[in-house]
Amino acid sequence: MRKLLEAVADGSLSPAEAEAELTGYVTGEAGRFDAAREHRRGIPEAILAEGKAPEQVTALAETALETTDRALLTRLSDRQLAVLESALADSFPDVTLEHRGDALLVETADRERPSVDATVGIVTAGTVDQTVADEAEIVCLDAGVAIDRVDDIGVAALDRTLDQVDRFRRADVLIVAAGREGALPTVIAGLVDTPVIGVPVSSGYGHGGDGEAALSGMLQSCTVMSVVNVDAGFVAGGQATLIARTIDSARTDPD
Amino acid sequence: MRKLLEAVADGSLSPAEAEAELTGYVTGEAGRFDAAREHRRGIPEAILAEGKAPEQVTALAETALETTDRALLTRLSDRQLAVLESALADSFPDVTLEHRGDALLVETADRERPSVDATVGIVTAGTVDQTVADEAEIVCLDAGVAIDRVDDIGVAALDRTLDQVDRFRRADVLIVAAGREGALPTVIAGLVDTPVIGVPVSSGYGHGGDGEAALSGMLQSCTVMSVVNVDAGFVAGGQATLIARTIDSARTDPD
Amino acid sequence: MRKLLEAVADGSLSPAEAEAELTGYVTGEAGRFDAAREHRRGIPEAILAEGKAPEQVTALAETALETTDRALLTRLSDRQLAVLESALADSFPDVTLEHRGDALLVETADRERPSVDATVGIVTAGTVDQTVADEAEIVCLDAGVAIDRVDDIGVAALDRTLDQVDRFRRADVLIVAAGREGALPTVIAGLVDTPVIGVPVSSGYGHGGDGEAALSGMLQSCTVMSVVNVDAGFVAGGQATLIARTIDSARTDPD
Amino acid sequence: MRKLLEAVADGSLSPAEAEAELTGYVTGEAGRFDAAREHRRGIPEAILAEGKAPEQVTALAETALETTDRALLTRLSDRQLAVLESALADSFPDVTLEHRGDALLVETADRERPSVDATVGIVTAGTVDQTVADEAEIVCLDAGVAIDRVDDIGVAALDRTLDQVDRFRRADVLIVAAGREGALPTVIAGLVDTPVIGVPVSSGYGHGGDGEAALSGMLQSCTVMSVVNVDAGFVAGGQATLIARTIDSARTDPD
Amino acid sequence: MRKLLEAVADGSLSPAEAEAELTGYVTGEAGRFDAAREHRRGIPEAILAEGKAPEQVTALAETALETTDRALLTRLSDRQLAVLESALADSFPDVTLEHRGDALLVETADRERPSVDATVGIVTAGTVDQTVADEAEIVCLDAGVAIDRVDDIGVAALDRTLDQVDRFRRADVLIVAAGREGALPTVIAGLVDTPVIGVPVSSGYGHGGDGEAALSGMLQSCTVMSVVNVDAGFVAGGQATLIARTIDSARTDPD
Amino acid sequence: MRKLLEAVADGSLSPAEAEAELTGYVTGEAGRFDAAREHRRGIPEAILAEGKAPEQVTALAETALETTDRALLTRLSDRQLAVLESALADSFPDVTLEHRGDALLVETADRERPSVDATVGIVTAGTVDQTVADEAEIVCLDAGVAIDRVDDIGVAALDRTLDQVDRFRRADVLIVAAGREGALPTVIAGLVDTPVIGVPVSSGYGHGGDGEAALSGMLQSCTVMSVVNVDAGFVAGGQATLIARTIDSARTDPD
Amino acid sequence: MRKLLEAVADGSLSPAEAEAELTGYVTGEAGRFDAAREHRRGIPEAILAEGKAPEQVTALAETALETTDRALLTRLSDRQLAVLESALADSFPDVTLEHRGDALLVETADRERPSVDATVGIVTAGTVDQTVADEAEIVCLDAGVAIDRVDDIGVAALDRTLDQVDRFRRADVLIVAAGREGALPTVIAGLVDTPVIGVPVSSGYGHGGDGEAALSGMLQSCTVMSVVNVDAGFVAGGQATLIARTIDSARTDPD
Amino acid sequence: MRKLLEAVADGSLSPAEAEAELTGYVTGEAGRFDAAREHRRGIPEAILAEGKAPEQVTALAETALETTDRALLTRLSDRQLAVLESALADSFPDVTLEHRGDALLVETADRERPSVDATVGIVTAGTVDQTVADEAEIVCLDAGVAIDRVDDIGVAALDRTLDQVDRFRRADVLIVAAGREGALPTVIAGLVDTPVIGVPVSSGYGHGGDGEAALSGMLQSCTVMSVVNVDAGFVAGGQATLIARTIDSARTDPD
Repeated sequence: MRKLLEAVADGSLSPAEAEAELTGYVTGEAGRFDAAREHRRGIPEAILAEGKAPEQVTALAETALETTDRALLTRLSDRQLAVLESALADSFPDVTLEHRGDALLVETADRERPSVDATVGIVTAGTVDQTVADEAEIVCLDAGVAIDRVDDIGVAALDRTLDQVDRFRRADVLIVAAGREGALPTVIAGLVDTPVIGVPVSSGYGHGGDGEAALSGMLQSCTVMSVVNVDAGFVAGGQATLIARTIDSARTDPD
Repeated sequence: MRKLLEAVADGSLSPAEAEAELTGYVTGEAGRFDAAREHRRGIPEAILAEGKAPEQVTALAETALETTDRALLTRLSDRQLAVLESALADSFPDVTLEHRGDALLVETADRERPSVDATVGIVTAGTVDQTVADEAEIVCLDAGVAIDRVDDIGVAALDRTLDQVDRFRRADVLIVAAGREGALPTVIAGLVDTPVIGVPVSSGYGHGGDGEAALSGMLQSCTVMSVVNVDAGFVAGGQATLIARTIDSARTDPD
Repeated sequence: MRKLLEAVADGSLSPAEAEAELTGYVTGEAGRFDAAREHRRGIPEAILAEGKAPEQVTALAETALETTDRALLTRLSDRQLAVLESALADSFPDVTLEHRGDALLVETADRERPSVDATVGIVTAGTVDQTVADEAEIVCLDAGVAIDRVDDIGVAALDRTLDQVDRFRRADVLIVAAGREGALPTVIAGLVDTPVIGVPVSSGYGHGGDGEAALSGMLQSCTVMSVVNVDAGFVAGGQATLIARTIDSARTDPD
Repeated sequence: MRKLLEAVADGSLSPAEAEAELTGYVTGEAGRFDAAREHRRGIPEAILAEGKAPEQVTALAETALETTDRALLTRLSDRQLAVLESALADSFPDVTLEHRGDALLVETADRERPSVDATVGIVTAGTVDQTVADEAEIVCLDAGVAIDRVDDIGVAALDRTLDQVDRFRRADVLIVAAGREGALPTVIAGLVDTPVIGVPVSSGYGHGGDGEAALSGMLQSCTVMSVVNVDAGFVAGGQATLIARTIDSARTDPD
Repeated sequence: MRKLLEAVADGSLSPAEAEAELTGYVTGEAGRFDAAREHRRGIPEAILAEGKAPEQVTALAETALETTDRALLTRLSDRQLAVLESALADSFPDVTLEHRGDALLVETADRERPSVDATVGIVTAGTVDQTVADEAEIVCLDAGVAIDRVDDIGVAALDRTLDQVDRFRRADVLIVAAGREGALPTVIAGLVDTPVIGVPVSSGYGHGGDGEAALSGMLQSCTVMSVVNVDAGFVAGGQATLIARTIDSARTDPD
Repeated sequence: MRKLLEAVADGSLSPAEAEAELTGYVTGEAGRFDAAREHRRGIPEAILAEGKAPEQVTALAETALETTDRALLTRLSDRQLAVLESALADSFPDVTLEHRGDALLVETADRERPSVDATVGIVTAGTVDQTVADEAEIVCLDAGVAIDRVDDIGVAALDRTLDQVDRFRRADVLIVAAGREGALPTVIAGLVDTPVIGVPVSSGYGHGGDGEAALSGMLQSCTVMSVVNVDAGFVAGGQATLIARTIDSARTDPD
Repeated sequence: MRKLLEAVADGSLSPAEAEAELTGYVTGEAGRFDAAREHRRGIPEAILAEGKAPEQVTALAETALETTDRALLTRLSDRQLAVLESALADSFPDVTLEHRGDALLVETADRERPSVDATVGIVTAGTVDQTVADEAEIVCLDAGVAIDRVDDIGVAALDRTLDQVDRFRRADVLIVAAGREGALPTVIAGLVDTPVIGVPVSSGYGHGGDGEAALSGMLQSCTVMSVVNVDAGFVAGGQATLIARTIDSARTDPD
Repeated sequence: MRKLLEAVADGSLSPAEAEAELTGYVTGEAGRFDAAREHRRGIPEAILAEGKAPEQVTALAETALETTDRALLTRLSDRQLAVLESALADSFPDVTLEHRGDALLVETADRERPSVDATVGIVTAGTVDQTVADEAEIVCLDAGVAIDRVDDIGVAALDRTLDQVDRFRRADVLIVAAGREGALPTVIAGLVDTPVIGVPVSSGYGHGGDGEAALSGMLQSCTVMSVVNVDAGFVAGGQATLIARTIDSARTDPD
């Protein structure tokens, strides 16, 4: 403790880093950032940009970079992104940015991204499902999990699905995002013995169009699979990452 | 009118037949029977046995036989059937009975069943969906429509579905009954250009298991099809019959 | 295959046309266009303009024109239409445009629109239902199906409905769009033996005003008919077209 | 007060009558009976037999007879009725009974039933709606309101509805009970300028079959009418009675 | 017919008036106006301004004035009102306008407003319920029904409700509008024997705050009353008007 | 620990008592009993008899008596009660039983029931709400809280409610149970400044009759109060007990 | 009365104060203010700023200040606050303002805020729940109740919750606000014997994200607690205040 | 093929085995058994006994034993079990039976149960959740996955949960079954980095008591986890088995 405070005193540790070290949390103007979440749950706290002011998004991202060497952002608008990029040019000039649709991973030069020896397949039924799948992908990317992404495999064109069966089998876990009636995860899960996580997407209109038809369809699936909430690509990516890590441990240290 | 009453007087017409002729309705102890419905809508009134006393079912069936030369019954229990058969042995000894699961078509010797030159394919996803499909089949049977029935074509075993595609294409209309997530009509409709009528079935449990998941899934289908209510096999059979008749007319009288 | 690539090489085939020929799909900046859908299902993929940038709408329309000789667009705003028209003036100067409310059919001079010998009646209950009926109409128009449109036949003024019964009978299939309590399809289906497809419309307010009252009413209809999702005029038009084509085949080739 | 207690003492008033006089309530083994309700609201408390033991039903009916000279019972089973009739033979040998389906009005010889100079039309769409309409009828009967009952006027047979329009117009208020899609009140209300009270009936199956489709349809009706809860025939009868009484007052005492 | 056309020819009848006379409808750019509705149902068609362009509102109002001598408008924004007033200054300079919140009645000098000898009490629970009550009031005003309006009688301040009981009793019919838990109609209906029409209002937040709590509470009311849809002040006013007219007839012509 | 095991060995402590002492739980054939719950939360675990075999109920009650000197049982059928009483006559011959409807408190002679110096008022709207209120009462009884019970204070007879206002004011906390539209808690809470806990009861039929109308009405109440789940009389009693104990502490030890 | 009017006449009492004195209400342009609510229910009427024009908010606040010496405002936007502050600088230059997030308490110099000897603990699960907790806090602040606020005690970081158990125990009542799955109140209530009031917050997305998951979870809680509506921080604060006052009375006057 | 038929002919293969070999299905009186499901999906078809006649259950079990050397049965009543055991004593005298609550695994002596080197932790919140967890366990048992079962870890007694954290960490996957508010999976998932599959259980009453509160709570969980349908213990066990097998492969064959 003494040491830590001395480090703050001599400037080798920022107050935020010290607070994170001591409590696991950093509390700023833009809210609280849970720096210790990854330690506890294995999945870092992401910054959901939707509904936040660009300045809040930027402040939270900077806190995340300061205390965990990277920031994970989802549902980022163009304007939020522009403000963030301009601020980072000053505050963290050496970071690298990787985009997945509206999701973003920012990493400092100090970060050594882990490498997980397991593959998560991420499949979408249609173009509108890609934003949700991007959230899943950014979590896997951050965790260093291998990703195999296959887009636009709709049930309405079954041939395209059947063509990819071998690829689905090679993945260790599959995330399948689908809106409307949400039948794709069921069709894929009926063809392979890979664990499937279904993600219902709110892309329809009329009765059940807010993702409820897809959610109830996946819960009622006549095959075996598990499900996350409507549009919860981040949760699906997190769950797949936890599974991938367990597989990686088994590979690395089989006993 | 005079003539009709004379026919009642001399016994060549029963009062029920006369009432049906004049008003379209026959009113008995067991309720009202709409003898003219087929004339108006092309589909006869069926007797939904569920929730009725065996004697009521029998009385309604006898009224139907007297005024329209056949009776169409659905959701018939073993006890209702036994009472009906025993009564008919006395009242209508010459009728023939055709069973489709819990559904039954009784016809007098006088009835000349029409022949409709069009085929309705009736497909079920699982064993539990067959009762609903039987209701659809009995309507088509009564109307003289050709029927091609294919059972147990579940999405969980996609190969079996793919094997039948040519058969699906040969039908003029398809009725597809499915419970749980109700994906089968979507999968089939994505493979053929035959019109598909989806029938959701209440065969699951948990969230959406009362047919609501299947119903919302079929309404949200990413392909083109129309839908009837949960367990409404009779309505699907009626709609398919109306379409089959139109096709038959076009075949018979192409101009 | 060789031939196809040579055709691309010598410019007689665009890359998009070649991709469509080979995979059925064309993937551009604005998303994926399913050029082979009509081949599979008999109904082309329409471009749902709602929620897309005018440039995306235009790009998708141009891809559709390039690979299938026409584009079908629905829920088009004034601004999207203006951008589209201006772009087409350059890229496809010889196309013809047919409007049905917010829906649009664009056809190149090369396209020979088919002619289907069957009539789809399209009926609306009120002014607010017309946009949904327009979607149904544009699909039938594209397919070359004969259309008989009757607007403003509300249940509140029953005389107007009764006046049109003969016209309803002459149609081979009827699409009936109605919001609020959605009683019109039931009333019409009780009067004629033509197959009826009900389309619930989200035109009310209060309990059930988002189309749910109309949807549940049509599903519970005491007469025979089938239903599509709330506001799903496009699906109703597609289903009617599939039925009309079957009738046309029966007329053209009665055996 | 003194007088009342003396009357109890000398036996010319029963304790129950005295309690009712003083508090408006009579409390027995079978529960509380609100003897003063009619005074306050104009509609007496009915005894809902459903879910009660035959002895409870009988006890409540006897309390009602003792304090208000008649008993109004609804949803009475055969066994409840048998026990009641047998008990009344002893306790109230001079009562008269009027049945309306499962509903019953029992009156002592002392009761002078009022006569209300106004007519309530009660209309049902189908046989299954009659039990609900019977509840409405028994309330009107008790109040001495003139009743015009028309059964089996379904939307599926529109001619029968149109035939009765003049009769509907002659009523001062109309109660229309309908299950399934519940379109009948809307159709009738669109044809006449009589106030209509819609009663949704829980007679369907599948989505909305518990009366919810009919309820939401009546609430969304494109014409003017008011509604009571699903199966609430008693409430509809009460509301119609209150209106009928106001009309009667206006007739009797026009100024 | 000849006469009518001659009248159009010589300008003493506008084409709109002639169309209305012949068909009951007038069809303009802004949609259809049902000029004959009042004749059929006793309640004129109102112009729901919400969601319409100010020019459409104006055009519909002018058609209404031309064919029925007055226009009834609801949910009118400030801008719609300004455009309407400015247009009417030219087209119908002699009209008079009566406002009730966002609702408006415009009458030409030719119109002789009827006088109905019956009183409708209109009661609101809170300030937010007044807009809905205003819709009810404008319908009664147009019909010439006497109105007794009492505002801000919330259940949270029961004394104020109890103070008004005599006033409630003097009305022939009561309309009671209430949001949140919607208890006011029940409390009032328990105190008087006047018929009560409950109007649930969408003025809350959280579970049931969109008027559903008030609607279900009024449907479940332990006293007798009928209900209209959430925010349907217009329907409540129409229903009360129909009842008031029947009472007026009874007063005017007691036999 | 040693001591405890010696006590078991010499028979002065039963194994169940020892398990409860060590872990807080006792696990028997009939399931687990949470003997330490009262210590943690202040409210003992009750035995919900509904759905259990009479022998299971008895076994759980005996375990409760053995480890906590009393047993609290709710929703007890006549048969379950008979079996329990007969078994207790052998196993715990000295217990005393207090009944509140279907709820029961059994206490050994060893138990010294606490005395809490605070009063919980328990109010019901109708006869059907009493079972739910009985559950609340048994919890208060067990805790030694003073109870003031007032039944049958319905909104339909407002005078009876107003008569009791002073009594409501004298309570420290009020529990108000009401079904149908559930307006009673709102009416009472608007009259007094005592904290009110509303309990919705599932006593209606039709839309919202399963307690949902009452629940949403109480949540939307225009006055201040808190709510428990439908039929959750036990939870209401527990919450009132926790509040009563805090008040008792304040009275006993004011600083 | 005479005296009061003389006071108005000589200007020592404003008309608003006199109206409040006589009727409990003050009616202005911006609506009605219920000045007597605190007297009746113990909780003053708050001004919900959401959806009101800044001028309306200001007018209501000034009326509240004039008649009750303070104003309680919730859900205040920046613009509404600016207009209010600028107006008060003129009309009530001596007031003091206390902010709690978007909630505000304004008090005149004349007001002597009461002091209640009891503590309400206010706990939030996450940053998004703070606005709702602020509403609860402002009510307690106004009432002079002691407040112990603990923020960001999420279930995802259970250690932080466990660390605060002693603090939770010291409170007399706990308000716990939580969105998403709303598990925090259950976890806390399982650890302490303080009464807990749960407040569900609408902070999620997807199925149940509008606060419905949290609401149903709190209603189903396996421990004892009561609940208010989604986002109803004001109601929770009011209920806690009523309980705190009862405790304060018991402390002040133990007999 | 020839060989297979010869084997049938000489009796070394039963017709059922041959049908299973050729089509993957065996069709008997009691319905269809999908013998090839395990091959496709890795999870065998279980026989859901609920709602089937004891003879049907027995017939399906015998088919399963004949074609796959074991039968997996769930939701088995005492009577179904007795009939099955008695029949197997004749038909398959050498089988061994393992019970997990109402679930049962029957294996022939020929079956060599696989051994999967991975552990599935199965946790229940309360006694009522055990039946659902038993279904999960029987699937893992059949697959040869190691199981660590922990019962009665409720949120109401948090200490017991915290005591087991190390055990939860040692599992490779966790299945957590919980009814009521369903908070347990969230609490556990917040403490460990093992993948968690939540199973909502329908064990409550009132609003959300049919498992909907638990389902929506798990979908809204503020930590990372996936979910299966209400009471779908079988699906959870299947999904955990698929994950366990992937881990086993990684351990066995790390490259």
